[in-house]
Amino acid sequence: MDGGPAGAAGPVHEVLAALPLVDHHCHGVVTAGLDRTGFESLITEGAVWPGSGISPFDSPVGVAVRRHCAPVLDLPRHAPADAYLARRAELGAAEVNRRFLTAAGTAAYCVDTGYAPGHGTTTPAELVEAAGGDAVVYEVVRLEAVAEAVAARGVEPGEYGAVLRAAVREAVRRPGVVAVKSVAAYRTGFDLDPARPSAEEVARAAAGWLARAPHRLDDPVLVRHLLWTAVDLGLPLQLHTGFGDSDIRLHRADPARLTDWLRLTAGTIPVLLLHCWPYQRQAAYLATVFERVYLDVGLALHYVGPARARAVLAEALEITPFRKLLYSSDAYGVAEFHHLGAVAFRQGLAGLLRERVDADELSPADAVRIARWTGRDNARRVYGLAGLPGLADLPG
Amino acid sequence: MDGGPAGAAGPVHEVLAALPLVDHHCHGVVTAGLDRTGFESLITEGAVWPGSGISPFDSPVGVAVRRHCAPVLDLPRHAPADAYLARRAELGAAEVNRRFLTAAGTAAYCVDTGYAPGHGTTTPAELVEAAGGDAVVYEVVRLEAVAEAVAARGVEPGEYGAVLRAAVREAVRRPGVVAVKSVAAYRTGFDLDPARPSAEEVARAAAGWLARAPHRLDDPVLVRHLLWTAVDLGLPLQLHTGFGDSDIRLHRADPARLTDWLRLTAGTIPVLLLHCWPYQRQAAYLATVFERVYLDVGLALHYVGPARARAVLAEALEITPFRKLLYSSDAYGVAEFHHLGAVAFRQGLAGLLRERVDADELSPADAVRIARWTGRDNARRVYGLAGLPGLADLPG
Amino acid sequence: MDGGPAGAAGPVHEVLAALPLVDHHCHGVVTAGLDRTGFESLITEGAVWPGSGISPFDSPVGVAVRRHCAPVLDLPRHAPADAYLARRAELGAAEVNRRFLTAAGTAAYCVDTGYAPGHGTTTPAELVEAAGGDAVVYEVVRLEAVAEAVAARGVEPGEYGAVLRAAVREAVRRPGVVAVKSVAAYRTGFDLDPARPSAEEVARAAAGWLARAPHRLDDPVLVRHLLWTAVDLGLPLQLHTGFGDSDIRLHRADPARLTDWLRLTAGTIPVLLLHCWPYQRQAAYLATVFERVYLDVGLALHYVGPARARAVLAEALEITPFRKLLYSSDAYGVAEFHHLGAVAFRQGLAGLLRERVDADELSPADAVRIARWTGRDNARRVYGLAGLPGLADLPG
Repeated sequence: MDGGPAGAAGPVHEVLAALPLVDHHCHGVVTAGLDRTGFESLITEGAVWPGSGISPFDSPVGVAVRRHCAPVLDLPRHAPADAYLARRAELGAAEVNRRFLTAAGTAAYCVDTGYAPGHGTTTPAELVEAAGGDAVVYEVVRLEAVAEAVAARGVEPGEYGAVLRAAVREAVRRPGVVAVKSVAAYRTGFDLDPARPSAEEVARAAAGWLARAPHRLDDPVLVRHLLWTAVDLGLPLQLHTGFGDSDIRLHRADPARLTDWLRLTAGTIPVLLLHCWPYQRQAAYLATVFERVYLDVGLALHYVGPARARAVLAEALEITPFRKLLYSSDAYGVAEFHHLGAVAFRQGLAGLLRERVDADELSPADAVRIARWTGRDNARRVYGLAGLPGLADLPG
Repeated sequence: MDGGPAGAAGPVHEVLAALPLVDHHCHGVVTAGLDRTGFESLITEGAVWPGSGISPFDSPVGVAVRRHCAPVLDLPRHAPADAYLARRAELGAAEVNRRFLTAAGTAAYCVDTGYAPGHGTTTPAELVEAAGGDAVVYEVVRLEAVAEAVAARGVEPGEYGAVLRAAVREAVRRPGVVAVKSVAAYRTGFDLDPARPSAEEVARAAAGWLARAPHRLDDPVLVRHLLWTAVDLGLPLQLHTGFGDSDIRLHRADPARLTDWLRLTAGTIPVLLLHCWPYQRQAAYLATVFERVYLDVGLALHYVGPARARAVLAEALEITPFRKLLYSSDAYGVAEFHHLGAVAFRQGLAGLLRERVDADELSPADAVRIARWTGRDNARRVYGLAGLPGLADLPG
Repeated sequence: MDGGPAGAAGPVHEVLAALPLVDHHCHGVVTAGLDRTGFESLITEGAVWPGSGISPFDSPVGVAVRRHCAPVLDLPRHAPADAYLARRAELGAAEVNRRFLTAAGTAAYCVDTGYAPGHGTTTPAELVEAAGGDAVVYEVVRLEAVAEAVAARGVEPGEYGAVLRAAVREAVRRPGVVAVKSVAAYRTGFDLDPARPSAEEVARAAAGWLARAPHRLDDPVLVRHLLWTAVDLGLPLQLHTGFGDSDIRLHRADPARLTDWLRLTAGTIPVLLLHCWPYQRQAAYLATVFERVYLDVGLALHYVGPARARAVLAEALEITPFRKLLYSSDAYGVAEFHHLGAVAFRQGLAGLLRERVDADELSPADAVRIARWTGRDNARRVYGLAGLPGLADLPG
């Protein structure tokens, strides 16, 4: 949009519209019906503020829901919020989820199961069942959740390192686990000592941390230890960076602050920088100079909406090798975001690529290749999905 | 402009062109005539550099003045700087000010009276008189000016806290005062301890500060104390963030650095992040996740000019609830900036909204609503202007 | 591009297409033939990652090379990488270099001779000879290289300050030297104490540094001392800021962090902020408020490519006085980048200016003036090139 009409037609648009996406980072959706407050609380990174007169519907993401999700529920585009919620209630959560997950056109989901598990959201198996068709699902293990479970079960500080390591290895042994994830950005930010902590440092930090309750992992030594645990594990590591809720300090989640750690761990595991906004250029720099660093602009895609996704993608792709950008929705809670993330990605990228093809800055064949790589094949490579059931024979 | 033709026609443009704006942060204008140096010194955040060959006219804001202000003085668009200054002198300051303030179409001004008071600029009453018509004026009290006046009058360190509090309460009791403002960004930047300082800390810091002269309030404890004084006061707090003159350290005025303080004070007073450029996305994040945080891109609007205002507004609105963006000009010194800020806002926002309407990403009714909210109604709500004389019955 | 068609025609485009550029910061090109790995290693700020499946050709700069450089080698636009490299080998390095340097249309080169000297790249004289025609060449002395040579020759710590000063004075006495350069951004970042170090501090720091080998100048006191040496010297100082290879910490190369030093040294030497991406707005702020600060977006121009150069230039010019933006390619290694930087600058700026002229936001005469100033005349002024052979009588 911004920058001309969003590629609403043409071969690149068609390729992107039909492409089975790999959503390399997302969450489950709520299985119960949602009242207005419940729904609104899930379409904002802020909160519902009763009595404020400020509704999440009155924001870019709210406009995008009314524009792009209403038709999936048989409503006219731009339907009012009340009509939208009424129709949603009328159809019921199962049907709503089915419609949006089908509409998303996602072939494979990598689901982070560590956020608010058991709060009435789908398990990975339920998510893919709701999506129907041939979609497959993989799991991403959240490291902080594993560590906090270790603490909750009780452990001696001197044993924490070994027990955590065993617990992580156990967790990733579940079928379908393809990656781990850390929310270090939320807990300490990225201004951490990049060095691997010694066993003594870990034990000392664990002693302090375990003595406190509840066990929210926010000790800088233990957060750092988690990141190094991921390195030892050998699986790809997803890292929340940038945009999130009010619990983050945005500037301290600038992925550039991870440079020293990325340099120290270069040549080990793939590191996937999630969300990144508004630091997508900083993330792109890291993906450009470090072999195993990747990025996406998930979460931002639906919050800025299809009207602005192209501008954000343009920054994310400004210098980035085309093998380094992935698609994710980071959808959580409402199935709308699985659909909206996909629409924003498909339309935003198609508009960007088509403009370059029209200006003869890019060949049509290259445009199609970039679309397929970023929407599907890069994730398939990084996570080794091609060898896994369901994605080996994805159509082109 | 950047991103297609600037909505020069159509219903959104017409609504914005006719909308009586609330300029929630601006300053007075010089009442005397201005020679070339005097005028140039007021259209740059740098300085006039004699002998450098670098004129503020040769910059985006200079081009915008010649393009959008010259016609208001009966000159052709893009009139040369010399012709512009000659015509300005010919008309005289009073007539020049009258023309630009009328052309701005501003219905209400919230005037920061704490910057360079008495330097030959209009009082709020004089400003609104020059604007003519039915415009109304409110006042914003600059906290640092109050504190520095307290110091200048003489006070015992142990009494500073109480005397300051009384002085601030006295200052805001003046009729028409609707907010306070802090320039903490200039004095310490935002890397401050977010906690409320104790009475002992304040007394100790005051002892050190009062012993020095002149009394420019730059002590980190006392700056922090000022911010907490605003919280106690209960009025909306305007905060300079981002862009300013050479006295600022730009990166330390990134509003993201205020996160801890905003978290601590959440649920208390409205906080209005002014200017924000180039951190408008960071400010938008804060406005998205904190109920009482708002932003504008004043000052930037006229410095980037109408040709680029749309791009800056697009970033400011990328994820922002539509209730959270306000209009301000931050005009100071020359009445041109009252006009230019309004033109940049009206044209930039109209272009942005119209493009989205044209692409069917936004309904026309929503576009009109966003225009009215950001240009007028949000300020009316935050400052409670609707209950004040003059703004109760503003036309739609 | 982004934001409408890239001014492919019209007077501004023609002026920019024909303008003899001054490239105020660039490097030599390799004189030997390059195999695939050799070429790829020179078109990325990352590295060639064997076995990764990630080729620098599959990135914005690779696409730009295939689009804009292939035709210079008689190949069709968007020629495949293999065909490109085969044709390059067929023509031979001398002919390839000649073609691109001629195509660049650069009238004057200011060559940084301190990066990887003697690694098979052209000397300034060889570069300009390869460029043919009437191009002239000037030299930029890299301060860290001088300091490291001083260390390599052996010096007593107590003598270091005086010997360095003499060595720098000697180095800049070579004919054609017009500036010095520092890569402090790489060595320490810009969070340095801005004050001039005392002779004792320098001697003490030199003692520590000289005791280590190899002598890579990364001591914060000595880096700071180098910057002050430049101030004493009186020549313009080029400073790497922002984007670079994996050896930089991007956020610590944000030029805003130099503010205190720029304030302390205001009124002394011109300081030219190089590259700046993604901090071009921060650099623009500094250039706006400090008389002797300038910026360019070299390096970024070819890495983002002509398809995106306009967006980056638009941010660089958002508030910037038109006297303050310069052109540089920062080309290194492959002559393609001398051409590509020039194409990206010419097309990007022409597109930006033409759009503003079309929208009547800028007069055609002003557009032409901005093009000439930024592409040529600003560098001529800052470096005093007009008085030097070859540039005195450049055509308009």
